[in-house]
Amino acid sequence: MVSEPSDSVSSPPGLSGTLGDMDPEAFRAAGHEVVDLIADYLAGVERYPVLPPIEPGTLRPLFPTAPPETGEPIETILADYRRLIEPNATHWQHPGFLAYFATSASGPGILGEMLTAGLGQNPMLWRTSPIGTELEIVVVDWLRAALGLPEPFDGLLTDTASTSSLIALAAARQATGIDAAAAGLTGRDLPALRVYASSEAHSSIEKACMTLGLGRAALVRIPTDGAYAMEPARLEAAIERDRAAGQRPIAVVATIGTTSSTAIDPVERIAAIAERHGLWLHVDSAYAGAAALIPERRTAFVGWERADSIVVNPHKWFFTPLDASLLLTRRMATLRDAFSLVPEYLRTLDREAPVRDYNEYTPQLGRRFRALKLWIQLRSFGLEGLRRRIEEHIRLAREFAAWVDADPDFERLAPVPFSTVCFRFAPAVLARDAADPAHQRRLDELNARLMEAVNRTGEVFLSHTRLDERFTIRLAIGNLRTGERHVARAWELLRSEAERLAGELE
Amino acid sequence: MVSEPSDSVSSPPGLSGTLGDMDPEAFRAAGHEVVDLIADYLAGVERYPVLPPIEPGTLRPLFPTAPPETGEPIETILADYRRLIEPNATHWQHPGFLAYFATSASGPGILGEMLTAGLGQNPMLWRTSPIGTELEIVVVDWLRAALGLPEPFDGLLTDTASTSSLIALAAARQATGIDAAAAGLTGRDLPALRVYASSEAHSSIEKACMTLGLGRAALVRIPTDGAYAMEPARLEAAIERDRAAGQRPIAVVATIGTTSSTAIDPVERIAAIAERHGLWLHVDSAYAGAAALIPERRTAFVGWERADSIVVNPHKWFFTPLDASLLLTRRMATLRDAFSLVPEYLRTLDREAPVRDYNEYTPQLGRRFRALKLWIQLRSFGLEGLRRRIEEHIRLAREFAAWVDADPDFERLAPVPFSTVCFRFAPAVLARDAADPAHQRRLDELNARLMEAVNRTGEVFLSHTRLDERFTIRLAIGNLRTGERHVARAWELLRSEAERLAGELE
Repeated sequence: MVSEPSDSVSSPPGLSGTLGDMDPEAFRAAGHEVVDLIADYLAGVERYPVLPPIEPGTLRPLFPTAPPETGEPIETILADYRRLIEPNATHWQHPGFLAYFATSASGPGILGEMLTAGLGQNPMLWRTSPIGTELEIVVVDWLRAALGLPEPFDGLLTDTASTSSLIALAAARQATGIDAAAAGLTGRDLPALRVYASSEAHSSIEKACMTLGLGRAALVRIPTDGAYAMEPARLEAAIERDRAAGQRPIAVVATIGTTSSTAIDPVERIAAIAERHGLWLHVDSAYAGAAALIPERRTAFVGWERADSIVVNPHKWFFTPLDASLLLTRRMATLRDAFSLVPEYLRTLDREAPVRDYNEYTPQLGRRFRALKLWIQLRSFGLEGLRRRIEEHIRLAREFAAWVDADPDFERLAPVPFSTVCFRFAPAVLARDAADPAHQRRLDELNARLMEAVNRTGEVFLSHTRLDERFTIRLAIGNLRTGERHVARAWELLRSEAERLAGELE
Repeated sequence: MVSEPSDSVSSPPGLSGTLGDMDPEAFRAAGHEVVDLIADYLAGVERYPVLPPIEPGTLRPLFPTAPPETGEPIETILADYRRLIEPNATHWQHPGFLAYFATSASGPGILGEMLTAGLGQNPMLWRTSPIGTELEIVVVDWLRAALGLPEPFDGLLTDTASTSSLIALAAARQATGIDAAAAGLTGRDLPALRVYASSEAHSSIEKACMTLGLGRAALVRIPTDGAYAMEPARLEAAIERDRAAGQRPIAVVATIGTTSSTAIDPVERIAAIAERHGLWLHVDSAYAGAAALIPERRTAFVGWERADSIVVNPHKWFFTPLDASLLLTRRMATLRDAFSLVPEYLRTLDREAPVRDYNEYTPQLGRRFRALKLWIQLRSFGLEGLRRRIEEHIRLAREFAAWVDADPDFERLAPVPFSTVCFRFAPAVLARDAADPAHQRRLDELNARLMEAVNRTGEVFLSHTRLDERFTIRLAIGNLRTGERHVARAWELLRSEAERLAGELE
């Protein structure tokens, strides 16, 4: 613990003529304090409500309207951190975080982020970080093999699945031969380009279309079957229809583990269609891809080895701190065609061997050293350690699904192939109204109120979606620290709040 | 220090039914060890050569071809970090790092990254991180005011200047009214869109054009004057010429502090032209923007308050760890038009007040809590602390420039408005050949050899560019820990290596 105020702007000894950084020993002392702060937070995170009970706009006034003119002691700042920052967070690290898809930061992952910050690498060029570049090659290949994908797959780490899928679709655009990177899409009389994905595909695919100049209009949403998986026959019909209309299909995005219900598109059949029509196949498995670490679970992934590109997010079900997204591709050269630019000031002159400069494959130039935390975490957990944790989450989700199925007042709304359960409260007392058009609306309102009531307890945090236009509560297990008692408690809260709401109905 | 091997996959007590994270007390012990490792690294970084003397491809074989099946003790991993990672980095934290533009991580910034990793926020929505969202609003406003910009400027933090400029140009594309976000750029018979920037503008502008579907062809490079600043008359002529040819100008990018020579485009005159032609004005001041913290230095920035958007990178001359780029804009609503998508699963139902959901302004959905490290660092240094450091770097650069100017064997190649000096070795012995067409080529080769020789000493790291087709050595001061002795030593090494090379010429 730091007990005396220190002058954080004092010059380190021996650096005359410079103001330098905070004193190295002051950094060391503050660093130890911060580690204790993090360790205490993680050990005690369940003291906090997962979702903090605050209203928008109430936090900003807690801070002064300008930064201080002169530096403040780090102790003051850390005290304010404890008082103003920590309690006003949504606690993604809380084991009761069962909303969206979890991003939980493992201990080894946090240590990795600490080292990343201290070492300060920017692996935009091999030369600006030889270890940052080559460890990324190592870790990407470790993950490729661990996921059961063949050697022709190479790849890189990006910040988010949004960026990974944007890169994939930019490569697809480039693979058409129209050379959008050089000539652009305007002033050329090009046919309308088209991308295909299921109606359940993630919004990041649509956003990539917006960014890339394809537009939301370019995304053709293919209907899904009863399990929310893309219907391949309708995909092929759409491609043929659009082609006949003079449009130009360029890519298909298949999802293994959709965001709403973790549905699995039939990738093998979709791959055959993409190949037949010469389209780029991108597989979005940002969340569920982690399950492919388990060989027995790879039946869900059959066909993805035929994809041109695949995204899997370590910062989801691999428990790696944000941000880390893995983009694998069999066509690195096409990514490079889409993004490479080498101005003189980035040219490496003093090396004979060919180098990999990762910035040539991404929309960004600067890059964080994301491979480091993955290297630390993969070694600390081991593949077997990761597999056991993922397997346990799948087991817990099935257990929860069985509780839902056994309760006549609840209704499960989708299969549970991974660790997410979609359901709603549909009490018997309302069942007689099933034919009434107002029935769905009443159930929707009831479930929105139920979810809100459960979230207000602060013990768990659930989020929602819509399936077949029905308001659907999702319980998504993926936090590293979630155990049986948290899932059981979520069910207990759902049942008791539902009972209370049902009482109001009568 | 951790003295006993710990089982990093053991279950924390009280979490029956889950495997959990590494034991909290093992994390605490390892965290303390990592802090010492970082503090020792920063205190002793000058032991390392800035640029490590290694060849491409030699690091990958140091690592096994697969991750371990079972977890390894964290001590083993940290020992490997010391042995394999740290020595093979390019040392951006070394005070002899005088290449590119420095990204140095301040002590307070590293503490901020540690807390960011531990708290695990994702401020994509207000709801997923109230404090992450509102502290970003606070810090963005602090920086806006500190840079001397008026209140209509709002903004956000992104990963890199590449992303910030991409967002700005996507907004420019949207502001044309052609609604590229919805309808896209293909199948519509649109005129060729055009973006204007000087021939010295950064490659990220060209890359944004590639990504956005405008293409490299869309970027019209405006010639510069003798100080490498854009010539406004030629900008206006180009806009009029393109318009007459049926093309559609959409944006002008002015740079304050170009990458090669830190030239300053005449923003006030460019702003007038952009306004006259109804074009979006984006100001790229990713590096030099920090100097606007100093009121007396704002003459270089006159006119930027008329821009539609401005990018300034805290992870450059603000000494914030990668990544943190600040995008300011007077037109947030247009950014939102370019990027907003709200699928059901991201809809916030339980809040009445309007919320800011930052993902609606960016190509990415997931976001790091970057405001935290900035809040800590701005408070720790104070504005005055930042200003003194920046001022000192400017002073050192001018001193170095004076040494170059005073030496008849060296030639300065550009003005020094900030902290970067462009120069070359042009020994008197070669001066008689000045008219010879081979003369420039000989000087180019000589300077490439000189720079390589200096870099091989490991004491400093310089990078190069081309100005007027001449090979140019850059000395860019921006590392937090660089002091007078490092700059003096760089000059000493340049002179002694130059003397040695000149000897070979005779």
